[in-house]
Amino acid sequence: MILRPAIQKRYVELDEPSLTDQRTDLGRLLQAIDDLEPVADLHVLRRLPTVLRAADFKVTAVIVDEALIDVEPGDTTKSQYAIAFDLGTTTVVATLLDVATGTPVAVASMLNRQQPFGGDVITRISATMMDPEALGRLQRAAAETLSTLAIQVCTEGEVDPSHVYEVAIAGNATMTALALGIDPEPLGVAPFIMSSPQPPDVLASELGLALHPRARATLFPALGAYVGGDIVAGMLASGMDRDKRTRLFIDVGTNCEIVLSDGDRILSTAAPAGPAFEGGAIRCGMRAADGAIEVVKLADDVELGVIGDVEPRGLCGSGLVDAVAELVKVGLLDASGRFVPDDVAKEVAPALADRLTILTSDRGEERVFVLHRPAPDAEPEDCVVLTQRDVRELQFAKAAISTGWTLLLEELGLEHRDVQQVLLAGSFGSYLSAASAVRIGLVPKLPVLRIVAAGNVAGEGAKMALLSIRERAGAQALLEEVTYVELSDRSEFNDRFVDQLGF
Amino acid sequence: MILRPAIQKRYVELDEPSLTDQRTDLGRLLQAIDDLEPVADLHVLRRLPTVLRAADFKVTAVIVDEALIDVEPGDTTKSQYAIAFDLGTTTVVATLLDVATGTPVAVASMLNRQQPFGGDVITRISATMMDPEALGRLQRAAAETLSTLAIQVCTEGEVDPSHVYEVAIAGNATMTALALGIDPEPLGVAPFIMSSPQPPDVLASELGLALHPRARATLFPALGAYVGGDIVAGMLASGMDRDKRTRLFIDVGTNCEIVLSDGDRILSTAAPAGPAFEGGAIRCGMRAADGAIEVVKLADDVELGVIGDVEPRGLCGSGLVDAVAELVKVGLLDASGRFVPDDVAKEVAPALADRLTILTSDRGEERVFVLHRPAPDAEPEDCVVLTQRDVRELQFAKAAISTGWTLLLEELGLEHRDVQQVLLAGSFGSYLSAASAVRIGLVPKLPVLRIVAAGNVAGEGAKMALLSIRERAGAQALLEEVTYVELSDRSEFNDRFVDQLGF
Repeated sequence: MILRPAIQKRYVELDEPSLTDQRTDLGRLLQAIDDLEPVADLHVLRRLPTVLRAADFKVTAVIVDEALIDVEPGDTTKSQYAIAFDLGTTTVVATLLDVATGTPVAVASMLNRQQPFGGDVITRISATMMDPEALGRLQRAAAETLSTLAIQVCTEGEVDPSHVYEVAIAGNATMTALALGIDPEPLGVAPFIMSSPQPPDVLASELGLALHPRARATLFPALGAYVGGDIVAGMLASGMDRDKRTRLFIDVGTNCEIVLSDGDRILSTAAPAGPAFEGGAIRCGMRAADGAIEVVKLADDVELGVIGDVEPRGLCGSGLVDAVAELVKVGLLDASGRFVPDDVAKEVAPALADRLTILTSDRGEERVFVLHRPAPDAEPEDCVVLTQRDVRELQFAKAAISTGWTLLLEELGLEHRDVQQVLLAGSFGSYLSAASAVRIGLVPKLPVLRIVAAGNVAGEGAKMALLSIRERAGAQALLEEVTYVELSDRSEFNDRFVDQLGF
Repeated sequence: MILRPAIQKRYVELDEPSLTDQRTDLGRLLQAIDDLEPVADLHVLRRLPTVLRAADFKVTAVIVDEALIDVEPGDTTKSQYAIAFDLGTTTVVATLLDVATGTPVAVASMLNRQQPFGGDVITRISATMMDPEALGRLQRAAAETLSTLAIQVCTEGEVDPSHVYEVAIAGNATMTALALGIDPEPLGVAPFIMSSPQPPDVLASELGLALHPRARATLFPALGAYVGGDIVAGMLASGMDRDKRTRLFIDVGTNCEIVLSDGDRILSTAAPAGPAFEGGAIRCGMRAADGAIEVVKLADDVELGVIGDVEPRGLCGSGLVDAVAELVKVGLLDASGRFVPDDVAKEVAPALADRLTILTSDRGEERVFVLHRPAPDAEPEDCVVLTQRDVRELQFAKAAISTGWTLLLEELGLEHRDVQQVLLAGSFGSYLSAASAVRIGLVPKLPVLRIVAAGNVAGEGAKMALLSIRERAGAQALLEEVTYVELSDRSEFNDRFVDQLGF
């Protein structure tokens, strides 16, 4: 990637005006900058006469894209910063970049302050439908989140916020609409309509950010109501538009985005995976935080990988997939997703069979597998367990996802084995065990080496857009190149879904 | 002029979205408008989803230039209005236009509320140099003036202000800078520098106007610090850019703008005429309001034309020029501008000679000509008089102006007689008697029929810009076509000035 940010600074020493050289202040400045032709708005014109004369006509022009956003006294070309935001439904990450050198200066993350309105996009959209004030409150919550992170990275990087001239934001269509204060209701109900093909040009201040007062905000465009700007950013970062291999990109979450490219055509779709991966519907589900089981291995005993190396408190998404995959492998779960009867359990996995027990709760009795028992005599309700219902939730999720990519493969006339690489993206997908994902059928049956954790590609895409106008144009081009496939009106969807339910 | 305003409305009935037609709200709307491709900003995107659905997808798109500024429920194509402002230093005029038909709906005018800061541009610029808060106060005064007139024309025309989508403003460079809140100091001191070749695009709301919240304001560009947007508008309205005749355009005022075209090249300049025409420096000077003498005829007696047909209270600019011209004609003023001695007066104009008398004031004794005596025995200080100093003020003014056009004529190698038409513009110039103007040498010595009062051409130009994007482009083109000639650094200026002092 060639470093060519939208932010450009030019230090100039201008001839002072005279009766034989009455060029206007702006004309004089722009004629001294021969490679760019920016437009000045009222705000910079208000500052221009004063700054030019106070600085003896030695000034630095600050340009973002086509706009002259400021004129600073003296030479300030060393200070040019931007912030890339990965605006997730759950977690928001900010990276402060020095765009003069292309290097990250500071990174910070926090939970999206919209959490109290619901853990996923649908509950937040519902909130706006039930309470006319919720949209404003959600917008302010987004603004507070972005603004808190901006202050944090500037403080940490010892950068004056007024030297931050641009931000890029990669978020799904709902997060983007809410941050902009656009009613998300049409995104949430069939036929799932976005307000515009791409977000409008806005100032960072319109998103509640106190950076340079005329700093620009660029928001990634979405391919559809459920294949948002975060996915476009991710496709950019993972080179989906340039790589000639047949690749499948899956961002696993409550809403699961799937992109398939055969090196020529690119298809995308969204599959509603339900809440299995966010932990909300899982009895012992939790976010991938300290105490969450993220790795499960079953043999003679249960081996757990726990985030933060502390006592296990619950199960995050990757732990859930691992647990189910291992239980299928050892034979404690059958192909239909049912825990096997006790006698079968004793036969196939004698060392683990006593962990299959009955949990009584307000939902009635159900069979569970105990993953972690805090004390030898602890009751099942005090243990970290995987319930029969949890398995069902995961089954539905993986069926939705695999139906999605199965239909995309068919659309391009491809088989599982044609896929040369699977990219697992998103804060969740990146932590999935490739072997477990293959085993439960979340991804096509491929050698695990072809399955790659892509990391936080949305955030990477946002950074690329800030450092390279060419990459930014690439994100725009994706809008034309990618065909969005709506699955919810396909008659074959439900049949395929049922096919995909088993393990 | 072909009616083609920048404001365009399009009523559309859109197909409702479905799972097989998931076009975005904006995409759906824009595809239904095939002749325009406007850009939507955040504000219209915030309204779009709600308005479309509330109006069953039957809406009117409101477009100004390249911008989609609103979407209104139902068919509102009948309501499209704009306001043209002539933003004068003294008087401001607003005309409400129905741009669908091209007809004016209401007109209103009032004194510019910046008057308390000084009667002319220089005193207002000085105010900003002496008091750091004056710029803000002047800006607010301009906003109040524009806004009061806007309310007045909307009320009178029974038009909802939110149906006014654009305003055009023709003002000189200082009025334009002050309305925008741009420091005018560089305009007021040598070398007289403007902030930008043309004013920035702004919203009417940024000028304090409460019309449609996203209404646009277009301000006329200036040719130089003292040949402002009002003159560009006037040139547009008087066809200076298209007429093939040799024409001289003179806007008479404290600052006098002069444009000369030989049908091929167009030159412009500004001449500082001093306060003679604003009345401030004239003993009995007053604005052209009720009681002002505007016409003077001298024969056996004094015949006066008085505005409002009331008792004369003073002398406005046109009356001043008439009085001096008539006094020269009857021989009471000599060619050098001095009142003749009493004995000469008795000889050349026996019926008027007793009106030449001595006035004693705090400025000492001076000779005056009594134009109006309120009572037969009234003392000179209670009469409407023309003083020797008044004559000197006018001499300086006309010398500055005639030096201006003389130098422009020389620049194009032309003689007086080559000028085919003289246009006298501005609220003052339009009322000048052609014969008097010729007699005192304010305009070239030409048959009076070639001298035409152009009326309020600045206001006309503003209206044309609102009704025709082609004319608006013409105003832009003038910036390239017209050469601005700076006189203040010309060595010959002072010599010519002295030549031009006599009558």
